[in-house]
Amino acid sequence: MTKSALQIARAAYQPKVPAALKGAVKAVDGEYTQSVADQEEIKELFPNTYGMPIVTFEKSSEKKDMPAINVGVILSGGQAPGGHNVIAGIFDGVKATNKDSRLYGFILGPGGLIDHKYMELTADIIDEYRNTGGFDMIGSGRTKLETKEQFDKGLEILKELDIKALVIIGGDDSNTNACVLAEYYKAINAGVQVIGCPKTIDGDLKNEQIETSFGFDTACKVYSEVIGNIQRDCNSAQKYWHFIKLMGRSASHIALECALQTQPNVAIVSEEVEAKNMSLDDIVTYVAEIVAKRAENGQNFGTVLIPEGLIEFVPAMKRLIAELNDFLAKHDAEFKMIKKSEQRAYIISKLTKENSDLYASLPEGVARQLSLDRDPHGNVQVSLIETEKLLSEMVGKKLDEWKKAGKYNGKFSALHHFFGYEGRCAAPSNYDADYCYSLGYTASCLIAAGKTGYMSSVRNTTAPADKWIAGGIPVTMMMNMEKRHGEMKPVIQKALVKLDGAPFKKFAANRDEWAMTTSYVYPGPIQYFGPTEVCDEPTKTLQLEQAK
Amino acid sequence: MTKSALQIARAAYQPKVPAALKGAVKAVDGEYTQSVADQEEIKELFPNTYGMPIVTFEKSSEKKDMPAINVGVILSGGQAPGGHNVIAGIFDGVKATNKDSRLYGFILGPGGLIDHKYMELTADIIDEYRNTGGFDMIGSGRTKLETKEQFDKGLEILKELDIKALVIIGGDDSNTNACVLAEYYKAINAGVQVIGCPKTIDGDLKNEQIETSFGFDTACKVYSEVIGNIQRDCNSAQKYWHFIKLMGRSASHIALECALQTQPNVAIVSEEVEAKNMSLDDIVTYVAEIVAKRAENGQNFGTVLIPEGLIEFVPAMKRLIAELNDFLAKHDAEFKMIKKSEQRAYIISKLTKENSDLYASLPEGVARQLSLDRDPHGNVQVSLIETEKLLSEMVGKKLDEWKKAGKYNGKFSALHHFFGYEGRCAAPSNYDADYCYSLGYTASCLIAAGKTGYMSSVRNTTAPADKWIAGGIPVTMMMNMEKRHGEMKPVIQKALVKLDGAPFKKFAANRDEWAMTTSYVYPGPIQYFGPTEVCDEPTKTLQLEQAK
Repeated sequence: MTKSALQIARAAYQPKVPAALKGAVKAVDGEYTQSVADQEEIKELFPNTYGMPIVTFEKSSEKKDMPAINVGVILSGGQAPGGHNVIAGIFDGVKATNKDSRLYGFILGPGGLIDHKYMELTADIIDEYRNTGGFDMIGSGRTKLETKEQFDKGLEILKELDIKALVIIGGDDSNTNACVLAEYYKAINAGVQVIGCPKTIDGDLKNEQIETSFGFDTACKVYSEVIGNIQRDCNSAQKYWHFIKLMGRSASHIALECALQTQPNVAIVSEEVEAKNMSLDDIVTYVAEIVAKRAENGQNFGTVLIPEGLIEFVPAMKRLIAELNDFLAKHDAEFKMIKKSEQRAYIISKLTKENSDLYASLPEGVARQLSLDRDPHGNVQVSLIETEKLLSEMVGKKLDEWKKAGKYNGKFSALHHFFGYEGRCAAPSNYDADYCYSLGYTASCLIAAGKTGYMSSVRNTTAPADKWIAGGIPVTMMMNMEKRHGEMKPVIQKALVKLDGAPFKKFAANRDEWAMTTSYVYPGPIQYFGPTEVCDEPTKTLQLEQAK
Repeated sequence: MTKSALQIARAAYQPKVPAALKGAVKAVDGEYTQSVADQEEIKELFPNTYGMPIVTFEKSSEKKDMPAINVGVILSGGQAPGGHNVIAGIFDGVKATNKDSRLYGFILGPGGLIDHKYMELTADIIDEYRNTGGFDMIGSGRTKLETKEQFDKGLEILKELDIKALVIIGGDDSNTNACVLAEYYKAINAGVQVIGCPKTIDGDLKNEQIETSFGFDTACKVYSEVIGNIQRDCNSAQKYWHFIKLMGRSASHIALECALQTQPNVAIVSEEVEAKNMSLDDIVTYVAEIVAKRAENGQNFGTVLIPEGLIEFVPAMKRLIAELNDFLAKHDAEFKMIKKSEQRAYIISKLTKENSDLYASLPEGVARQLSLDRDPHGNVQVSLIETEKLLSEMVGKKLDEWKKAGKYNGKFSALHHFFGYEGRCAAPSNYDADYCYSLGYTASCLIAAGKTGYMSSVRNTTAPADKWIAGGIPVTMMMNMEKRHGEMKPVIQKALVKLDGAPFKKFAANRDEWAMTTSYVYPGPIQYFGPTEVCDEPTKTLQLEQAK
């Protein structure tokens, strides 16, 4: 592997950890817990892992001799900066307990456990990946660990390798599954503990106990770097409106954090769109009005941030997509016979009035994406819809109408961007490097303390790392029952943007000013070697949430 | 202006300069010069600024008292990182000569000179923008300074403000125009010197005397940062081919530099495509073969870098575009009457056989871009063509054919990116911060030495800044006669990628290995505060070109 100069210099970085994790550690059990909702159902589904106490780690005066232990680790789902540091933290943690302990990585995600594909992670390998981005050390995958057959198949290889504990690094679904697995292995007395780690750039795995998911900090900083650069370009050339879509699945945490970091002229928050029952036309009108007002001041330029999941939060679009999915599933053969150039008219003629009108109002490219780009289950692939182009085209159309009506007299020229893959595998910021390493090290402490069905937790992270609080949270505590694919399932509550939360309120209080003035902030690239205020600040979201 | 923590910390950076520029400076004239070609014609067109000597600045033992002077500065054309530092260098240089000297900035490019829009650039303003990206201090514009009327109009305001020297910061065309202006003002004895500065991220303004244009270093580093991140994602998920288009106009310097920095599986170099007379199908086949070979090794993922200007370098596409421009110009009214869904068939029926076949083979989206997205002169807007989608669609089609023929048995799933606006206004790297400041300071020395028709030049920049050589190059020296819009014009030769140059040779020697192995390099974000090998390295292109 040819390494860049930065990678070489960065390898030597020693992540900062909570004071409690330096030296001998003891687990202190706190109060017994309840799930956030549906306590009876969750308790029944998790008889062995429900109600356990929150655990906190404290400095211990006595170092216990622990037997060597074999541990397995899995990366599950989409990449997030810092995954390698979680693994390095686990490795250093289990080695600190007993130098003969071993760590195994399962290859390409949960599938590696089921298919018995693994590698031992030795010190040489770990050192090669410290403080690097990506999940390429062992790869990741999207196979869901859900069935008894999978669990039993996995147990075979765990037994064969004498693995006594498994750490699953993943998002809300993966951690839910980790808990189901923990429950099952405990129920059958398999002798395998299961620990989860909160990973996702989307920032939607957080709650009272988990301050943030790892990777969110770095990804938002990468996006904010390039958004800042584009805004500086926008303000220098003064002739384009930049429509910038940002990854983040359903939740708008990334768009909101980037807005707080860069102060764009417009940022849409899906959760607000849903709460206000806004139509696509409402959103378009909102943006067009800002474009028109800026034009009155001679400013025919600006920036618009759009969350990836927006379309699904527009109630009318949701209904259109549902009918389309349903209709095309039923009329697949018939639809395929129709000439491409006539498909649009065909769909318009078949949908119910409301949906037909909305479909007809969409730009051609987007209409085509809705009817053609379908996943193997026949559903529209919402994430492939170029919402940034959809919005800018519709804003352009509206401005044309206003121009004819004499309401608008500016120039509107749009450029489009989508940022996602640029940030998921960036090398972790100091925050994520420290946080991830601490999460991994904490996971090893949970293992040493004999825990299962816990998520590794590191809190108080807006304070210096020394003061961070390491511990474990029973996963069942974060659960409730939700309908998934028509069935009620126990799941970790997904954290959407709270409209009464401090980050959104800060944004809402400033957006009108940011819309009309040009108050862009240019965060620049992530720095690793400079002054602490440049290198170590957590996200604005976290700072605002923790400022109480 | 709300400043980011990095911006605040970075403001204090003191750019490094050549040793000769520290303290009193003397100009040493070298040999008299000739233009690179067409000497007779150029000499005739520039009787007052032709044949002047190369100037080098050296340390002087005596500090001369100089009268105060008013200087003007213009940013011309597309943004490039470091423009503000050029202006800061000019400012500090003219103030060092005499503290009563003044600097005026013309607003939004050359148009500001013609329309008499300007602002005085005081120390407060300059300090606000030191080491920042963007051109927003005074803005930039694309108005071309070409006519006698413009020159005379400009002279009015120069006289009014008592400006004795004008620095034009721009690309090859802007510097050509700066020289025409210098010649004119000298011819009419206007008493205004004109100095140029080599700016463009595209890297195509360079020659024996100008090592590189400013901004190329930073822009390539920003693109390489995000390409590296995408490659790490690609190698972690192992399921996508990423097609990445990069800005850079006609020349492929940016794509080549990014390839050298990140080692992708494929990088296309337009100049090679033209030299080998490759067809679109040749390019598609080349990429598809690499996709197929990697699939044989189970690697259904990879990265492809595509230079923005590619389409224009495919001879057959060039012919198609030429006929389309011609045809649609003549049949505009008729074409507009045709239903959208029938336009494609209409065009296919009207073009000559070769062009018709090629047009028919293009994916629908690209065909539409070719016939619809036209500039005010009726020409296809080549830069808007999504070459990254064009190539990936055609590669996908070819692979489908090969699959049917049993030649290929992999999975091909593509994602697309275009990077350009992300890098043009990034805060300058140390290299660009130093280089730009030195260029600006050198421009002030050329002014003090009474020079006109010169380009500011700083050479030997792969050595430590102390050893850099500052001087001036007569712009006429870089000129030749070229046909532009049907007329022979004196212009600075545009520097395309040389296929016998060290950067391309290095790439060509390694690309087959990079294609089959996964040898990605992850450069990470630009660093400002770390070790010198991380913060101060120039581009690979420059290092290879200078290693003799």
